Amino acid sequence: MSQIYDRVALIGLGLIASSMFWAMKRGGLAREVAGYARSAETRQTAREIGLCDVVCDTAVEAVRDADLVVLCVPVGAMGAVAEEIAPALKPGATVSDVGSVKRAVIDAVAPYLPEGVHFVPAHPMAGTEYSGPTSGFAELFDERWTLIVPDGADEDATQQLEALWQGMGALTERMDVEHHDQVCAVVSHIPHLIAYTMVGVADDLRRVSDREVVKFSAAGFRDFTRIAASDPTMWRDVFLNNKDATLDVLGRFSEELFKLQSAIRAGDGEHLHRYFTRTREIRRGIIEAGQDTGVPDFGRIKKAE
Amino acid sequence: MSQIYDRVALIGLGLIASSMFWAMKRGGLAREVAGYARSAETRQTAREIGLCDVVCDTAVEAVRDADLVVLCVPVGAMGAVAEEIAPALKPGATVSDVGSVKRAVIDAVAPYLPEGVHFVPAHPMAGTEYSGPTSGFAELFDERWTLIVPDGADEDATQQLEALWQGMGALTERMDVEHHDQVCAVVSHIPHLIAYTMVGVADDLRRVSDREVVKFSAAGFRDFTRIAASDPTMWRDVFLNNKDATLDVLGRFSEELFKLQSAIRAGDGEHLHRYFTRTREIRRGIIEAGQDTGVPDFGRIKKAE
Repeated sequence: MSQIYDRVALIGLGLIASSMFWAMKRGGLAREVAGYARSAETRQTAREIGLCDVVCDTAVEAVRDADLVVLCVPVGAMGAVAEEIAPALKPGATVSDVGSVKRAVIDAVAPYLPEGVHFVPAHPMAGTEYSGPTSGFAELFDERWTLIVPDGADEDATQQLEALWQGMGALTERMDVEHHDQVCAVVSHIPHLIAYTMVGVADDLRRVSDREVVKFSAAGFRDFTRIAASDPTMWRDVFLNNKDATLDVLGRFSEELFKLQSAIRAGDGEHLHRYFTRTREIRRGIIEAGQDTGVPDFGRIKKAE
Repeated sequence: MSQIYDRVALIGLGLIASSMFWAMKRGGLAREVAGYARSAETRQTAREIGLCDVVCDTAVEAVRDADLVVLCVPVGAMGAVAEEIAPALKPGATVSDVGSVKRAVIDAVAPYLPEGVHFVPAHPMAGTEYSGPTSGFAELFDERWTLIVPDGADEDATQQLEALWQGMGALTERMDVEHHDQVCAVVSHIPHLIAYTMVGVADDLRRVSDREVVKFSAAGFRDFTRIAASDPTMWRDVFLNNKDATLDVLGRFSEELFKLQSAIRAGDGEHLHRYFTRTREIRRGIIEAGQDTGVPDFGRIKKAE
């Protein structure tokens, strides 16, 4: 693959930024990548493990002369970072981000960006339960979707950013701002909230010991704990900043759950059977779409690769 | 490994029974295994793929002379099957089952069993999203827990059944009836109900297309679809027959969810952050207990092994 940007700045050095760095190195996609993290400890770690070609002590220093600046901080911190770096941005540069919500990020960041700087928001739908500068790896984005939300941005700048994500292994798709936030509420935000709740409930039930919950987790519970172990700060900001869409889907979820609860209480087996049959079809669609395999490993301990 | 039973009868030939057959063959644990399924089509399939040493056309024929009879039918069908086979059971034989709930099964089955027949209920906590006679495989129970619920059964008969499950690769643990049903409501039944609900909600939301839900499922939603694809009849019977424990845990779940919902509405980031930090610890415990690995593959497409 060939170089797509000359100088890239990564603001924030967590899972996504560190994976971007290794993926850019793998593909030879940038001549130089500068990094900045607010915490001196994170910057120190980054220097020790060779994360970024240069680690800067200020965000302003990192973005100077950068052709692409990617904001990789929690959604709630995007506005303050944008305000800080805005005066140092190179004319013609592209600013992007990796936030899981887009309306709130655009509203927070766009007002600070000077004329002549392109803002092309993006959202890589990839993650693990780990966070921090040592958690990244070059393969994180391979075969995963990155949603690009240009919101009227310059076409050339948008295509260049798409080329970068594709070079890092991702599949890309453009989406409108509001639609992005709704789709993500359904496929990601509410599933995470539900998983957090289920794990919290199990922890609260004193009649069933913690030891038992952990020991017998493979029966279904375990699949929830994996997503409920994601970064707390990131997820707090997602829910605070995608309030309308998440509350909307959550309301729908509660209604459905109450209907199933009533069916259990009333002994309405037909309703339950019909519901469970329908959901099975959706699973078949996901396997056919190549987003999972049909290998019968449900509930089994995965071997380290 | 050596033979543990002379003749075993499997009543019902779905995922669990077919996996038991292949696991018993692998370990040489029974001299002869007879099978019976209510559907002629299932019996025909079983004969074609060599599932069971002999496939019988009636349950009575299958259990005659059997030293161990395992009821592998949905929980709601256990009572009728017990009534049918009771007169044909060999004195001194052991009857067991593989149901996911135990109080309801014991109440339905025990009254029919004659004096001198031992009833040792069991619950293998293993499964896949597939069902039917062709879905079984010898490794299904390897390293997975099978809960034994003797409920006062004969000690020798209990130990013999435990040896069989261990021979099939399972870890075994004894549990009281009521405690079993509570533990399973927390670690398995309610997680399944929640997953079914989440998948049903996504299907209902017409503003987000089915295609998008499927396409972007790896962002969290996908983990729910796997458990929401389990056998509808089996799960209908689980909820109808473990009503008290599931409604109890479900009530607790709703309370917690409403608290998180209020926190989102009120913008209470501190509550959300505290909650999400606590659930992360539980995940760490599960990895330490060896019931999952820490390999950072969350949300990634698993390779076929």
